[in-house]
Amino acid sequence: MERIAIDMDEVIADYIAKQLLLYNKTFHENVKVEDLTGQKLRHYRPEHKEKLIEFLKDPSFFTDLDVMPDSQEVIRELNRHYDVYITTAAMEYPTSFTAKYNWLKEHFPFLDDQKFVFCGNKGIIHADYLIDDNVKHFPDFTGTPLLFTAPHNMHVTGYTRINNWKEARSFFLDKK
Amino acid sequence: MERIAIDMDEVIADYIAKQLLLYNKTFHENVKVEDLTGQKLRHYRPEHKEKLIEFLKDPSFFTDLDVMPDSQEVIRELNRHYDVYITTAAMEYPTSFTAKYNWLKEHFPFLDDQKFVFCGNKGIIHADYLIDDNVKHFPDFTGTPLLFTAPHNMHVTGYTRINNWKEARSFFLDKK
Repeated sequence: MERIAIDMDEVIADYIAKQLLLYNKTFHENVKVEDLTGQKLRHYRPEHKEKLIEFLKDPSFFTDLDVMPDSQEVIRELNRHYDVYITTAAMEYPTSFTAKYNWLKEHFPFLDDQKFVFCGNKGIIHADYLIDDNVKHFPDFTGTPLLFTAPHNMHVTGYTRINNWKEARSFFLDKK
Repeated sequence: MERIAIDMDEVIADYIAKQLLLYNKTFHENVKVEDLTGQKLRHYRPEHKEKLIEFLKDPSFFTDLDVMPDSQEVIRELNRHYDVYITTAAMEYPTSFTAKYNWLKEHFPFLDDQKFVFCGNKGIIHADYLIDDNVKHFPDFTGTPLLFTAPHNMHVTGYTRINNWKEARSFFLDKK
């Protein structure tokens, strides 16, 4: 059975919506998702980088992220035909571990928690596919990288792209 | 550069010493490490299995474990010649995440935390070697498994065994 490793933030968890909500509330601004095409918020508003990091250090940041559209249904189906792991880069914000674990148990209760991986470098991941929004993980990954579309990676080329979970469904299940 | 994945409990962290201390104090017993040859404490005292699990659910359990003899010096040296990762099965006790992370930062400050992996099944680990005391991780591991001697695995055969960190040093560095 082929193995698929799936990232969390911006792939199954809607990190940007929460970040923008907090940011706009704190700084009385109205930054929109569209403003972040090709960049992260910390590049768009570098003067507030420290505050943005502070948001992420608060464990509660990760407790109530929305689930990305269709991810639950599609991953439930993928899980019947593939060996599905969740692989999240969590070492930058170790305070987020428990919140991330609880979020996964709440929204993806059909996944086995023995297949959750909290890591840093994803070169350590042994899988056939890695679905991730962050290209920094791809050069060291030995399987097939699949770039999950997020505002910040809109201009990235050179990787097979998956724009949303309906497309992921086609990619993996049309051949089954 | 070859990659070595190293387990935590019973390999670099002296889990049994702490467990016996707590157990003996709680139940007014005097169980010794020698009593655990070929078995874990939960098999030796199955009637107290629930209490033993409770010990591990308390995050503080993992905060003050002793470091296994010579592990710091040897791993510091290995880290110069190999790509060293710490891969610990943490999903059974998610409350332990932060304590385990802090313990690693305290006792192995020379390791990059981007190379810490908290996982369940270690089949997901992509490394050339896995040093672990628990054989259950070996069948799915695609590299070379190395069994780190612990009381509970004394009778296990069929794997290359490393009895202590001085032996690990010889195994990996004599050829360098």
